[in-house]
Amino acid sequence: MNAKLKAVVLLSGGMDSCVTAAMARETHEIAMVHASYGQRTEVRERRAFKEIADFYGVRERLVVRLEHFSQIGGSALTDTRIAVPERAQPFDFAQGMHAAPLRGEQAAVGSAIPVTYVPFRNAHFLSVAVSWAEVIGARAVFIGAVEEDSSGYPDCRAEYYRAFQQVVREGTRPETQIEIVTPVIAMRKSEIVRRGISLAAPLHLTWSCYQFGEEACGACESCVLRLRAFAEAGAKDSIVYRALARPR
Amino acid sequence: MNAKLKAVVLLSGGMDSCVTAAMARETHEIAMVHASYGQRTEVRERRAFKEIADFYGVRERLVVRLEHFSQIGGSALTDTRIAVPERAQPFDFAQGMHAAPLRGEQAAVGSAIPVTYVPFRNAHFLSVAVSWAEVIGARAVFIGAVEEDSSGYPDCRAEYYRAFQQVVREGTRPETQIEIVTPVIAMRKSEIVRRGISLAAPLHLTWSCYQFGEEACGACESCVLRLRAFAEAGAKDSIVYRALARPR
Repeated sequence: MNAKLKAVVLLSGGMDSCVTAAMARETHEIAMVHASYGQRTEVRERRAFKEIADFYGVRERLVVRLEHFSQIGGSALTDTRIAVPERAQPFDFAQGMHAAPLRGEQAAVGSAIPVTYVPFRNAHFLSVAVSWAEVIGARAVFIGAVEEDSSGYPDCRAEYYRAFQQVVREGTRPETQIEIVTPVIAMRKSEIVRRGISLAAPLHLTWSCYQFGEEACGACESCVLRLRAFAEAGAKDSIVYRALARPR
Repeated sequence: MNAKLKAVVLLSGGMDSCVTAAMARETHEIAMVHASYGQRTEVRERRAFKEIADFYGVRERLVVRLEHFSQIGGSALTDTRIAVPERAQPFDFAQGMHAAPLRGEQAAVGSAIPVTYVPFRNAHFLSVAVSWAEVIGARAVFIGAVEEDSSGYPDCRAEYYRAFQQVVREGTRPETQIEIVTPVIAMRKSEIVRRGISLAAPLHLTWSCYQFGEEACGACESCVLRLRAFAEAGAKDSIVYRALARPR
């Protein structure tokens, strides 16, 4: 029997990290870590994590709560005084996608970065995953960051992960070897949906909405990107959207 | 009036970070951050932080608690099942220093890294400091890591901080400029003591012991390094040591 090496998968509970987990399973025995950070949809995302981890029968799990993001603030996701932007009209299910480009349109004044950017967030997530990986002897950390089709967050770009890899090399025990793997970073969201479907990933258990907890809003940037991805992939998104429930 | 730029200082409450703060004040308006991580001497270190911040009249403060280190474990500092090593005999106050070299002597099996190494710890601290710095508009993060005279921790070396600087450059807003500054990294501990004295830093308020909370043990690696530093600097360490209180 050829035992697989162990990998830690950062699973937010969203679509990208779910497909990342599906891809990691092909080559590694997976352990899963989830980090809450006081974001609006924290409870719902934690449920998505649990359901996906159950789906894959993952035994080694770590769920952490990074309270300090609420203290630090500075993002619409963690600071209730900053509103999560909505599009003037929710996603047009008839048309299938929005006409206007999304990237940067909800940027803070003087910045091309959206107000939903959580300052330096992914460094915290990676730090948790790498510390745990070093303790449990995992040889890789998978993270579902997406560059091209994402929202312009600086910590979703390939250069960022290359730089972090160097920090891992320098900052762990000499005998530790942990590779940072970003398998979906160069994919379009629609390609991620297709890959998820081809790997039978449980996309129906994932959660993307920035705004609410039980039904997705269908109007925040994350919902819009997701819906557009399913539309482009010619697939049906089976989670429930509040916008769909409204009389049109 | 020439307003100073703002800097975030990571202040553990130990000697190195206290002297780092004293140096940062020379050039910057300082904000102070302290991170507890379930270490044995957490409460005592938090008190040292408060007293040093009060001493310097620092208004902007952030105290965070990183609960997940206790979940992750893997270090004598955060996992009570792993003992903090003591030297066979405590520091010899008559002789002034230990004869044997300290570096690596308490290493885990198969590793040159001491069991007090907390896996990838400083990445968590830096991440907190950088996120906060980005929100409050600070232009530098000061951290009191010491390479040469330290315990062989991988995340106390200059290369590590150079690598992290690149992560900060890649992972924050394009308009954000935060420099990682390690002013004591190349100093010997005795030089740090001397510098602290020359800057009138409140060394009497600092705390270094890994083991206990009210009196320093005088026997753990951190105490021994501190006592040796004061001895070499020809200065008196005015904190209370348990070993000194014993009849000899």
